[in-house]
Amino acid sequence: MRCESFDKVVHRLHLILLTWILLTIQARSMSGERSTYIIHMDKSVMPKVFATHHHWYSSILHAIKTDTPTTSAGLQSTARLIYTYDHALHGFSALLSSQELESLRESPGFVSAYRDRAVTLDTTHTFEFLKLNPVTGLWPASDYGEDVIVGVIDSGVWPESPSFKDDGMTQIPARWKGTCEEGEDFNSSMCNRKLIGARSFIKGLIAANPGIHVTMNSPRDSFGHGTHTSSTVAGNYVEGASYFGYATGTARGVAPRARVAMYKVAGEEGLTSDVIAGIDQAIADGVDVISISMGFDYVPLYEDPIAIASFAAMEKGVLVSCSAGNAGPLPLGTLHNGIPWILTVAAGTIDRSFTGTLTLGNGLTITGWTMFPASAVVQNLPLIYDKTLSACNSSELLSGAPYGIIICHNTGYIYGQLGAISESEVEAAIFISDDPKLFELGGLDWPGVVISPKDAPALIDYAKTGNKPRATMTFQQTIVNTKPAPAVAFYTSRGPSPSCPTILKPDVMAPGSLVLAAWVPNRETARIGTGLSLSSDYTMVSGTSMACPHASGVAALLRGAHPEWSVAAIRSAIVTTANPYDNTFNHIRDNGLNFTIASPLAMGAGQIDPNGALDPGLVYDATPQDYVNLLCSMNFTKKQILTITRSNTYTCPKTSPDLNYPSFIALYSQNDNKSTTVVQKFQRTVTNVGDGTATYHATVIAPRGSKVTVSPTTLVFEKKYEKQSYTMSIKYKSDKDGKISFGWLTWIEDDGEHTVRSPIVVSPLVVNHR
Amino acid sequence: MRCESFDKVVHRLHLILLTWILLTIQARSMSGERSTYIIHMDKSVMPKVFATHHHWYSSILHAIKTDTPTTSAGLQSTARLIYTYDHALHGFSALLSSQELESLRESPGFVSAYRDRAVTLDTTHTFEFLKLNPVTGLWPASDYGEDVIVGVIDSGVWPESPSFKDDGMTQIPARWKGTCEEGEDFNSSMCNRKLIGARSFIKGLIAANPGIHVTMNSPRDSFGHGTHTSSTVAGNYVEGASYFGYATGTARGVAPRARVAMYKVAGEEGLTSDVIAGIDQAIADGVDVISISMGFDYVPLYEDPIAIASFAAMEKGVLVSCSAGNAGPLPLGTLHNGIPWILTVAAGTIDRSFTGTLTLGNGLTITGWTMFPASAVVQNLPLIYDKTLSACNSSELLSGAPYGIIICHNTGYIYGQLGAISESEVEAAIFISDDPKLFELGGLDWPGVVISPKDAPALIDYAKTGNKPRATMTFQQTIVNTKPAPAVAFYTSRGPSPSCPTILKPDVMAPGSLVLAAWVPNRETARIGTGLSLSSDYTMVSGTSMACPHASGVAALLRGAHPEWSVAAIRSAIVTTANPYDNTFNHIRDNGLNFTIASPLAMGAGQIDPNGALDPGLVYDATPQDYVNLLCSMNFTKKQILTITRSNTYTCPKTSPDLNYPSFIALYSQNDNKSTTVVQKFQRTVTNVGDGTATYHATVIAPRGSKVTVSPTTLVFEKKYEKQSYTMSIKYKSDKDGKISFGWLTWIEDDGEHTVRSPIVVSPLVVNHR
Repeated sequence: MRCESFDKVVHRLHLILLTWILLTIQARSMSGERSTYIIHMDKSVMPKVFATHHHWYSSILHAIKTDTPTTSAGLQSTARLIYTYDHALHGFSALLSSQELESLRESPGFVSAYRDRAVTLDTTHTFEFLKLNPVTGLWPASDYGEDVIVGVIDSGVWPESPSFKDDGMTQIPARWKGTCEEGEDFNSSMCNRKLIGARSFIKGLIAANPGIHVTMNSPRDSFGHGTHTSSTVAGNYVEGASYFGYATGTARGVAPRARVAMYKVAGEEGLTSDVIAGIDQAIADGVDVISISMGFDYVPLYEDPIAIASFAAMEKGVLVSCSAGNAGPLPLGTLHNGIPWILTVAAGTIDRSFTGTLTLGNGLTITGWTMFPASAVVQNLPLIYDKTLSACNSSELLSGAPYGIIICHNTGYIYGQLGAISESEVEAAIFISDDPKLFELGGLDWPGVVISPKDAPALIDYAKTGNKPRATMTFQQTIVNTKPAPAVAFYTSRGPSPSCPTILKPDVMAPGSLVLAAWVPNRETARIGTGLSLSSDYTMVSGTSMACPHASGVAALLRGAHPEWSVAAIRSAIVTTANPYDNTFNHIRDNGLNFTIASPLAMGAGQIDPNGALDPGLVYDATPQDYVNLLCSMNFTKKQILTITRSNTYTCPKTSPDLNYPSFIALYSQNDNKSTTVVQKFQRTVTNVGDGTATYHATVIAPRGSKVTVSPTTLVFEKKYEKQSYTMSIKYKSDKDGKISFGWLTWIEDDGEHTVRSPIVVSPLVVNHR
Repeated sequence: MRCESFDKVVHRLHLILLTWILLTIQARSMSGERSTYIIHMDKSVMPKVFATHHHWYSSILHAIKTDTPTTSAGLQSTARLIYTYDHALHGFSALLSSQELESLRESPGFVSAYRDRAVTLDTTHTFEFLKLNPVTGLWPASDYGEDVIVGVIDSGVWPESPSFKDDGMTQIPARWKGTCEEGEDFNSSMCNRKLIGARSFIKGLIAANPGIHVTMNSPRDSFGHGTHTSSTVAGNYVEGASYFGYATGTARGVAPRARVAMYKVAGEEGLTSDVIAGIDQAIADGVDVISISMGFDYVPLYEDPIAIASFAAMEKGVLVSCSAGNAGPLPLGTLHNGIPWILTVAAGTIDRSFTGTLTLGNGLTITGWTMFPASAVVQNLPLIYDKTLSACNSSELLSGAPYGIIICHNTGYIYGQLGAISESEVEAAIFISDDPKLFELGGLDWPGVVISPKDAPALIDYAKTGNKPRATMTFQQTIVNTKPAPAVAFYTSRGPSPSCPTILKPDVMAPGSLVLAAWVPNRETARIGTGLSLSSDYTMVSGTSMACPHASGVAALLRGAHPEWSVAAIRSAIVTTANPYDNTFNHIRDNGLNFTIASPLAMGAGQIDPNGALDPGLVYDATPQDYVNLLCSMNFTKKQILTITRSNTYTCPKTSPDLNYPSFIALYSQNDNKSTTVVQKFQRTVTNVGDGTATYHATVIAPRGSKVTVSPTTLVFEKKYEKQSYTMSIKYKSDKDGKISFGWLTWIEDDGEHTVRSPIVVSPLVVNHR
């Protein structure tokens, strides 16, 4: 399990994936040594003698215990129940030896078992960027999410953050069944009308590590991640939030009146068993949307706790929104949470830049990039441009530099230069670079600005030829409406989904780079020089972890506006209204792939458009059975399918890989030499969710080298909720170089009011493993 | 001329008086070399042939020029007019050689002349501390100063500061005659309904220094001082102002709806001729109150430009409020601006502290003082208490210290320790001190807290005996309502006034230590370590410069509430309602004199009480002729008096050192051995400004060793504006040690509604010179 955020406050600015290094469970093959397993059970065969599933599972565990005398010192002498689950899945988690596990497999009702695994984790102007506004669209239509409860599965919450004040919040909906759990530095009075619940799940962690000292044994966040994601989804209005003077403004969540319930399933570490327990409880407590900024890499659907637990959520109408992961840009197929019944969210950039102004003695002004976290005074200092020093690769050399501002050459190694300057503590520095990684992740430990290579000649010319060249530098400026934006974040994981490649993932992109949201006050968020760590109540971090809660917030608003919609309908509305264009009206570009046009494997259908999603015209709906039909086509065993579905009432009357999904992916096998032509046919049914009659016509932009046929090309609806079907077939060629091509099928309403856009991708079938 | 603020952002925390080192005019005795002189003229003898005073002065100057052929290279060949003055005084300033000056003395109408001199300069929860509130008292009674114009004589203004936005301001009063002068980085559109005027006066400076490069040739403030004082008087409401997270809140001036007109008379330097020009113009423009946070040390009244110019202001009903200076605590008699017709303001502390919390590993929490300007993360670090290191007197030694928080002994030399720690860049430090200077001036360049010696034993005990002792430190906390407050600021200059010792000065005390107000963005306001300078739009500085605008603001509010009152009445109201007690209901203490009970020579009548001053019951009024009568008693020549009064219509029908002043000072000459008994009699007249009938009874607390007699002891008023007189005589002894004693005469109304309190001081006559 890994947490999906990029932390911009990394020391020395190296790109570090903020990873919940959860316990990498090594195979413990010694007989008698126990590990945690997740056990799925078929509840339909539970003998009537047991009052509850808990009694049944305890009884089973008790039965197998007697079979296994253990002796080795230091090990627990009995198998031990950790959690019982009843919503996300039917079953339990337990500490078991391999013999105990074998016994268990023989028990009646046993479906499947797998090891507890470590999870991987995945961050506000973003509401403006997403065009959320109080006048029209999704905010007023949903009362800002007032009746919606968002369960956040994460690292806990800092309840004192102003983002969780409940000013302006109404009564908690009566249906809420959750609680505010007491624990270390946490009492039940810390919840309110905004933060309506908080629970912590660490039994799995403790079971796996009997002697472990748990850093913060309560729902309190000691990491920051959960505070950031939950305030991004539904934080209250907070005036004057900023990251050290950058991005200053009134912070707020995407759904500023929605309720937050925190399910802490990980601190700096966490496990499958705890994650399932958290989701299980969220479903039981009655949340409407679940936001999960973490994921399990390279696990099959039937062993992916998020896939499993979210199936149950979907059945109950609870949309689960997850981050795609930060494994980008290369290779393909690194995405996680590529689960057919959830919303999978990629990360994009924001139309905002953090700048400093360089004013030269000759009057020339150059705007550069900076995030130096203080109002440094760099006033009319000498400019130093010197062959040796300007490599900026030796802090020792730089420490002997004359008084002034050092100009660093563009050596292509900006991170090393930033480090050397910071260690040397010269007065200030000017760097020359256009590395998008830096601008997406942030961080600058010493007074300086990074200027564009195109502005460099004027600077260097003045530094070389000016009479006593001097410059002044100012900091803490924020520019919005920068162009082009959004772009695909370089780090966002790319599809196809390893666990279900036939469904195009990610679904959509949301703002993920340098998102401002609440943080914990006792953790470093910036650094000055080599010695000084700073904290901040609001911080900017980057990752799909930050994109996911944006989408979760939009889903919460849609749930509020359309209480009657299914999970699939909400997702379809989000996908078919997403915008593949940036604010220059050109195709969104991919920062990770040399600014080429972004493919849907990077951004799904494009940037999420909340107001568009409110009124999509048509939706691609799907029932639980539709997902089962897909599972039936996947060469899974009955028990593997039951692990996910939990119920034998689902059968496989029809095996179909062709889920009624709002996007299309056609895969080919890569052969070394041959280019084979393939035809793939997709069947789709759309439901008119607009009011009254409507006529739609298909327009297609075929993927390069492919031919796309749609039939019929006109769909006529007489009334709301009417369904119409069509087929789309694509004739495409495999490519020995594994090229990706993509296009669009768009249903456009006659009066132009609604546009229902689906991406079409042709991709090699990629097989990546951990 | 010196500026009266203490800047807390001094490097290495040495106490540096923020001084406008104005041009120390050295005697230029070479024949032919010119200096600037201020020339006072008797305008009543101006021949009718001249259309204006300007023509007359030009003609005179032209006449004397012809007398003086000059030849030496590099010197100007003619005498040159710099300014003509017509409001503050009658006369002009001019560059003159000594021969030219001698010629001038022979001209008809010549009154006096003296050299242009360098001036000395003197820095928000303070409105709360002063109990200003929107419900009752002076704020609502004066409409927050809406119709009042305050002229600030200072270093200019930063017009872009949010304190000078005009949100919520009404139309500028029609009587306003000022202007918004264009200049370097300043155009007329920078003024608005809040900052209604801005002018710059630098001709004197340029005349004295022909080749000088003027830093900022416009009303723009490049120093910070004027921006701070003017925003303290009448800054608009600014949400979220803070000094690096300290003193956070909504900043506002004392008179938040009053208008500001800036008269810039000094940058980093400034001169008498410019100061007079500024005041002269302020009077002409129609300001209601003039605030001057600067002063001239040890000059007789007739050569003190502020005394001279403020006489004219007083005549026109314009109250002039000035800072007492920062030459305290010792010796006595260092005060400047001890001018009978102005309000002289001392500085006190505020009921606010800036703290950090130290949490020890054993759970003990200690609150210490800190102003470290960033949110440093000092989390659970080892505590280091080591005999050698803990002297904290060597940055070299400290640089080799183990990782953790260094505890520094209380060696009594906190400033050296602060410097050594900062240079060493150890992780953090704990200092032990209760030096009030530090807490009044602020500054701390490296993560640390200063704890009280009484808290030290618990800390040291834990550090010595604890198992792996550790601590966490947090910053940026502000505590208000601290006690006792106010105290007299250690630095505030003490009376008696060298230029007029028979009038008790200062008049009152106002908040001066660590006052938060607007600042210029391009000047250092804090420092981190040895290398990093920080700026801030709001800063906290200390000085009588900061106290003065508080009093000026109160005077502006009183002018708004009582447009009919004379300058003397406003001052009397402020003095007789001032509070000599602190918030523990004990006598205000003197931080500069070992926390002894503060004397009126330090604080005047006590802390200014705006709401009390609104309704003083009785006032001690005075007319211009009353001040002339005092001047007549001072052994001045007629011309010296005319220099101040500008008009021969004032005569000396009665010479009286006994001005109708709301306080009393009895002086004695110090003889080495003898103790002489003296009796001094004071005559006073009070005016009933309360509504209707009133009866007052005198109560006296006699100065120790003195006997005070009041006659009559009851004053009965039948109606408003009725006057009653009384005599107070004091029988006291000279003291060979120069001891000061003091007491109070208080007139208390029968129903207790009004209390009219006057300090009585017995002091040696002190003669200090520059």
